[in-house]
Amino acid sequence: MDSPQTTRVPKVFLVRTEIDLLLADLTEGDPVPSERDLATRFGVARETVRQALRELLVEGRIRRQGRGTVISRPKLTQPLSLRSYTEGAISLGRTPGRILVAWEDVAADAATATDLEVELGTEVMHLERVLLADGERVGLESTYLPLHRFATLRGTYDPTTSLYAAIRATGVELAGARERIETVLAAPREAGLLECTTALPMLLLHRRSVDADGAPIERVRSLYRGDRVAFEARLSPEPA
Amino acid sequence: MDSPQTTRVPKVFLVRTEIDLLLADLTEGDPVPSERDLATRFGVARETVRQALRELLVEGRIRRQGRGTVISRPKLTQPLSLRSYTEGAISLGRTPGRILVAWEDVAADAATATDLEVELGTEVMHLERVLLADGERVGLESTYLPLHRFATLRGTYDPTTSLYAAIRATGVELAGARERIETVLAAPREAGLLECTTALPMLLLHRRSVDADGAPIERVRSLYRGDRVAFEARLSPEPA
Repeated sequence: MDSPQTTRVPKVFLVRTEIDLLLADLTEGDPVPSERDLATRFGVARETVRQALRELLVEGRIRRQGRGTVISRPKLTQPLSLRSYTEGAISLGRTPGRILVAWEDVAADAATATDLEVELGTEVMHLERVLLADGERVGLESTYLPLHRFATLRGTYDPTTSLYAAIRATGVELAGARERIETVLAAPREAGLLECTTALPMLLLHRRSVDADGAPIERVRSLYRGDRVAFEARLSPEPA
Repeated sequence: MDSPQTTRVPKVFLVRTEIDLLLADLTEGDPVPSERDLATRFGVARETVRQALRELLVEGRIRRQGRGTVISRPKLTQPLSLRSYTEGAISLGRTPGRILVAWEDVAADAATATDLEVELGTEVMHLERVLLADGERVGLESTYLPLHRFATLRGTYDPTTSLYAAIRATGVELAGARERIETVLAAPREAGLLECTTALPMLLLHRRSVDADGAPIERVRSLYRGDRVAFEARLSPEPA
């Protein structure tokens, strides 16, 4: 068959394919040709080019810089593992950082109470931080910890550093976690903290971690910019 | 501290919290009160209620049905595993189905050639199917198979059934896979096939599966409706 699929695809897909070929030869930080140039080169309407570029922005392949558009760095691809964000970013050659947004005691809602095995309304420690990679805001992490185990962190922990390292320093080892992965749009407050629009799809992760006895360590809700972060898993056959 | 966080949150968040409480008492298929009713009940503008309901639609908590809005079924939460979509859906009590969109030989592009370890431009088998759960379109799966291994499927395989079962029937066992998880917006063609809008965030999975000798079996690109599907992983410590 001689490329039978080219006869039924919409024009924006063909233009997108051409742009992908063009971008394949460019590297991080290179300028992307303008909408007008691309429309002339491919003989299509500017709106067709604009749609293809919008897709590439959402996918994180290109990014706005000043008045122009440039090739992005590859996404921060984190392995789905028990390691912390800090450890994951370092292993990928990125410099991790965190900005503290909130550190307070709050009353556990139903989901938090279930995950942390405390009574509904019990005070728990809440830590909310923006996650940085090389200074750029890529995620927003909200962690809930049972106070009866971790109240001492108040006096010892620097919230711009790895929480997992601090937890380990208290003698607690993470032995397992359940992680749920979804996608959502950012709420206005979250978009503000991550310096993106509410139309950008985000990866939403909920994690519950336990120690070797199965006792809960944390409940975490993490939101990652979909144009900056991806996850990777290695799968093997399940034990029969 | 007495709920210090309630003083700094935007009105839509408070309304959302109230609506969440209201919805918690309802079950699948129950009607959701109208925008007007909710605005009156909470003493806020209809636009505030509308925004909260839009969030709930994207998250898949509620759904349009006829002229009204009802409570959705819980998302189809698939374990990240080597099992097929078919096996995953059945284990969750859903009836899986597939609609064939395309079954053709295509020339391998760069990514497909790398994953399948064939020369660029080699003909490979391409199978594109809409994934159904209880008759509803929840995903779009595009699979590439090396012809030198799987050309026999042309004569034997019913594309509305499990591909993994058919692969196993040829004597090939899946021994491992690498899976990459991202989020994107649906392209217009994909939104059409999945009967959703291009503003709905999707979960995008790329999988490469190999047999026990490490020889490639397939490259798969799957797109799942973010309001209908979630993934779950169980994490354990990595071997030291």
